[in-house]
Amino acid sequence: MTPSPLAPARFPELPVIDGVRFATAAAGVRYQGRDDVMLALLAPGSAVAGVFTRSATRAAPVLDCQNKIGLPADGGAAIVVNSGNANAFTGREGVVATEAITAAVADTLGLDPKRVFSSSTGVIGELLAYDRIVGCLPDLKHRLDPGAINSAAAAIMTTDTFAKGACAEIEIDGKTVRIAGMAKGSGMISPDMATMLAYIFTDAAVDQNTLQTMVGQLSDVTFNCITVDSDTSTSDSVLVAATGAAQVRVTQSHGVFRDALHAVMLDLAHQVVRDGEGASKFIEIAVLGAKSTKDAHTHAMSIANSPLVKTAVAGEDPNWGRVVMAIGKSGAVADRDLLTIRFGDILVAENGWVAPSYREDEAAAYMKGSNLRIAVDLGIGAHSATVWTCDLTHGYIEINADYRS
Amino acid sequence: MTPSPLAPARFPELPVIDGVRFATAAAGVRYQGRDDVMLALLAPGSAVAGVFTRSATRAAPVLDCQNKIGLPADGGAAIVVNSGNANAFTGREGVVATEAITAAVADTLGLDPKRVFSSSTGVIGELLAYDRIVGCLPDLKHRLDPGAINSAAAAIMTTDTFAKGACAEIEIDGKTVRIAGMAKGSGMISPDMATMLAYIFTDAAVDQNTLQTMVGQLSDVTFNCITVDSDTSTSDSVLVAATGAAQVRVTQSHGVFRDALHAVMLDLAHQVVRDGEGASKFIEIAVLGAKSTKDAHTHAMSIANSPLVKTAVAGEDPNWGRVVMAIGKSGAVADRDLLTIRFGDILVAENGWVAPSYREDEAAAYMKGSNLRIAVDLGIGAHSATVWTCDLTHGYIEINADYRS
Repeated sequence: MTPSPLAPARFPELPVIDGVRFATAAAGVRYQGRDDVMLALLAPGSAVAGVFTRSATRAAPVLDCQNKIGLPADGGAAIVVNSGNANAFTGREGVVATEAITAAVADTLGLDPKRVFSSSTGVIGELLAYDRIVGCLPDLKHRLDPGAINSAAAAIMTTDTFAKGACAEIEIDGKTVRIAGMAKGSGMISPDMATMLAYIFTDAAVDQNTLQTMVGQLSDVTFNCITVDSDTSTSDSVLVAATGAAQVRVTQSHGVFRDALHAVMLDLAHQVVRDGEGASKFIEIAVLGAKSTKDAHTHAMSIANSPLVKTAVAGEDPNWGRVVMAIGKSGAVADRDLLTIRFGDILVAENGWVAPSYREDEAAAYMKGSNLRIAVDLGIGAHSATVWTCDLTHGYIEINADYRS
Repeated sequence: MTPSPLAPARFPELPVIDGVRFATAAAGVRYQGRDDVMLALLAPGSAVAGVFTRSATRAAPVLDCQNKIGLPADGGAAIVVNSGNANAFTGREGVVATEAITAAVADTLGLDPKRVFSSSTGVIGELLAYDRIVGCLPDLKHRLDPGAINSAAAAIMTTDTFAKGACAEIEIDGKTVRIAGMAKGSGMISPDMATMLAYIFTDAAVDQNTLQTMVGQLSDVTFNCITVDSDTSTSDSVLVAATGAAQVRVTQSHGVFRDALHAVMLDLAHQVVRDGEGASKFIEIAVLGAKSTKDAHTHAMSIANSPLVKTAVAGEDPNWGRVVMAIGKSGAVADRDLLTIRFGDILVAENGWVAPSYREDEAAAYMKGSNLRIAVDLGIGAHSATVWTCDLTHGYIEINADYRS
């Protein structure tokens, strides 16, 4: 698979996070000739926070994770992920598979099963051959390695065209704290109904409630602000683990930690958009001057999900009329005659009509870039929101229609 | 332009509606070598009902029509429509253009300006050369003809690939009542931000309030149940005029009239979907067993607007997993394990997993048809909804991205 034209130049140098060890294996769940299982073992005392898809048809491992997050439990914890099969819409058998995998991991590593979190990503509606994963566990245990995060990021890929990693290193109270994460996803949902997963690790000590609150808030301004095709997966999950090994206790008031975690989550979220199915342009959409943050987000997502806006961007057409249309249809408050629209720094429209200074050739030249920004000032309030998306191209149709999944 | 593969075999034989006369002209608003203005004159005493886009950025003529519908006024009425320019997002100048056109029509035909309804459809953000339309009015008045509805249906087309007409003839109290209508649209919105318009005429006598109520209710189960790309236009309008010339007074209790009007509106709505941009398949989506009609509609629209469902249909892939995904993301109530999914008569999934009788080759053969039905029984209530859409193909990308609009 050729990497997306929007892929970063290289996979980042991820630091070792004290208190986490990784191992990968080729279980042959669906793919051949590559690793498809990732195991992460977290040191005793680690906190694990998670946010998950709100889909009403979410997959068995997602429901299992949701039930376990925040339960009181001692000892270490583990995260086990397979690619190739999503174990979604598999009925009672799906629950059996999830329980078999998490129980076997707990057994192998001497953990409380309540502290084993699993994800599955890949095709939907097919039974997961969980025995293949269980069969790899002794080998995985044997090969646990603090430096194996890169292979872990590769093992969770499905139709991704590049592995996604991000990290941060900060000083708190004179001590170094590290954050490293990985994600997979080629849209909110990819052709096999595999979808977005992200795992982030830090050696800071963060108590469970603080971490969960922080991750929930930061997800709302990172992963929940990206869209490729408006289709929400049955498996989306973000897990953040804090091992505490850096001997630095982080609280809500530690802005520097929060900012660093925010940056890592945003970087991973952007990489998912940059690997959006068929994407040729990365688009930031900012809505300013809204009555509320919710209204700003609704307008921004309406623009980001509009097939007509996305195809116009693909065609390098500065079609601001379609932006006006998307604002109009969103259902949130707007006044047609107060809109100000900018493509990059170019003032396109104001006072309910095209701006007197607007030159179509200048805007058309801007649209040839790979990284674009569309900003709309509603002019009626003080709230704003920013979301990220990609364009809608023949590549999306090819991936999703031309080949049977 | 090659007609859509889903177009009806021919334009129907529309009956003359006593009390309505039509004329068309080539004003050269944007297109050359074709008629682009349509005028309909309605006899004194005609009732005119209308439903319009709820877009917050709706066009000047839409706002003008909304203000006029239902106002007390005597005498005849008129509908004037131009194609090629939507007079949308044109600021104060847009209001001036609409007022100039409706005032000139009133003057030319001796009508109260409050009884002149106008629509404009075509490009957005460009000033409408209303003087060209005004200049045609004497000629249009001279050529008003009860039999010219076919040319009227052609004059309102923008990127449509075929003219759309539908009609009904019924007996009420031993007298014949006729309904004839036309529509334009190639999606909720077409490349130039031109969009859906429909005009329907009957010689029944229907009082204003009854007609408005009936048209509102019937729009909710016809035009408001179609989608091509989820993008709502700034100009969508449906006008229904009743001249009373058949000497038959229709009230809410006349089920036969209501049913006939419903059939005409549904026929026109289906034709708009059949002319959907790039469409190769016409898809009916039925959701049954819902907690409420609103929930059923939300689920059905979530399936109909899912790019992944629409590309799967384009690829003739019976990808029921994507239907499960669309149900899950819709936000309305559903229980994954109670879903029953059918493609045509083929039982695909039940009890939270693929049906034991399901054979992929059978479903794949079904998907090769041009007219498909996807039905989902939620199994949790007694309410249902049906919507209509088309697939998402390379044709859609070509129309909206490959060419500058």
